[in-house]
Amino acid sequence: MPTPGPQPAMILVRPQMGENIGAAARAMWNFGLDRMRLVDPRDGWPNPKAVVMASGAGRLLDEAGLFKTTAEAVSDCSYVFATTARQRDMTKPVFSPEAAMKLAAEKIAAGDKVAVLFGPERAGLENDDIARANAIISVPVNPDFPSLNLAQCVLLTGYEWRRQTTEVIHETTEMAGSDWATGEDMENLALHYEERLTQAGFFFPETKAEGMKRNLRNLWSRTPLTRADVQMLHGILRQMVRWKERGD
Amino acid sequence: MPTPGPQPAMILVRPQMGENIGAAARAMWNFGLDRMRLVDPRDGWPNPKAVVMASGAGRLLDEAGLFKTTAEAVSDCSYVFATTARQRDMTKPVFSPEAAMKLAAEKIAAGDKVAVLFGPERAGLENDDIARANAIISVPVNPDFPSLNLAQCVLLTGYEWRRQTTEVIHETTEMAGSDWATGEDMENLALHYEERLTQAGFFFPETKAEGMKRNLRNLWSRTPLTRADVQMLHGILRQMVRWKERGD
Repeated sequence: MPTPGPQPAMILVRPQMGENIGAAARAMWNFGLDRMRLVDPRDGWPNPKAVVMASGAGRLLDEAGLFKTTAEAVSDCSYVFATTARQRDMTKPVFSPEAAMKLAAEKIAAGDKVAVLFGPERAGLENDDIARANAIISVPVNPDFPSLNLAQCVLLTGYEWRRQTTEVIHETTEMAGSDWATGEDMENLALHYEERLTQAGFFFPETKAEGMKRNLRNLWSRTPLTRADVQMLHGILRQMVRWKERGD
Repeated sequence: MPTPGPQPAMILVRPQMGENIGAAARAMWNFGLDRMRLVDPRDGWPNPKAVVMASGAGRLLDEAGLFKTTAEAVSDCSYVFATTARQRDMTKPVFSPEAAMKLAAEKIAAGDKVAVLFGPERAGLENDDIARANAIISVPVNPDFPSLNLAQCVLLTGYEWRRQTTEVIHETTEMAGSDWATGEDMENLALHYEERLTQAGFFFPETKAEGMKRNLRNLWSRTPLTRADVQMLHGILRQMVRWKERGD
């Protein structure tokens, strides 16, 4: 993702520790987000501790917008989400991160400028900040232990943004330089084992032989074998025979 | 989530800093996961720094299982995921966190014991750890900046577990009178073949031996084997040895 397209601005409201600002920058860039805004950071700006922690995502800090108030930070945004762990007794839509980022992608595609507010480490967003938001994002955490830190909250939001806006491959198979075995490969493998194991006296007693052969074929056919695996299985059997014939 | 039901074990393999073990415990409990296992933590165990960082999730550390090796840590598990950022040139299924936790929920509902392996902070899992896993979990990160830390990787996995376990199970597996083989069954099978095939001179040349053993372990670990299948594979090998010794 060298040049991310339109995306939501991640706004850290009155963040306290520089380390957490740096960690948030890393979490954003992990998922291709690079529009950071800061509202009145406690320890001033720029912050060397943020730079150290951001290693690799330092560009986001250099380009981060600095604002005195939440109102100024969202002044150019047409739809604003606020992340909060607890109920605030406000009448406002509440979305899961998944639903929120789906909506964000739709609004951005329609030309909206979208932002997501993240509160200070301890207290979280103040009600006056949340009052400026169009909707709330609530992460479905364990109610017995809802304490997500700032960077984690940014991470989960970025993760859902990426899931909603890129084609995620849900299942694939990494191949180690070999194709899958063909039906012919599998037939030859089964025949090789049946022949040698018959000689070896494995299919005993006679009454069980057919069932044992079928179980072995079922094992092979259930196994996702590459041609290299099949060659290895042939080689194992051939080598056992050589060993037997060496008689050492 | 006061009493979580059956769930995957989160296995931290050779974790380095205690702070990261504590942060991983917090990330787990944020999403109701509380079965932590540790393989050979660098700074020993228990670790006071882990306890401080885990504040609120300390119970997970108290109850964490401590193991010397990855093999021991997965010995009671019948399906194991490995989290890794980069390709390892192994033939193995690769899942998104979403698809992986969906599968984990289905397997657990079907009675499987499932585990997820997380590697050390710097290097990540070793190939020999991954060779013991049935599948890989790959987080869809920004390819230009894929550096997730340990606790973040645990957090995203836990988040997807929570998302997927609110869903109904649509699929299960019909078993033909035998349970799936456990990690211990698979380890014993691999050791039996490695021992005999070493005697037989199969792992040749010496420079290729480790790679050949890993390929064989990958073949086993990729294979949905029942305990009956494992017994058959032991029996095949024993019979080839008997045949050799008969020298007929």
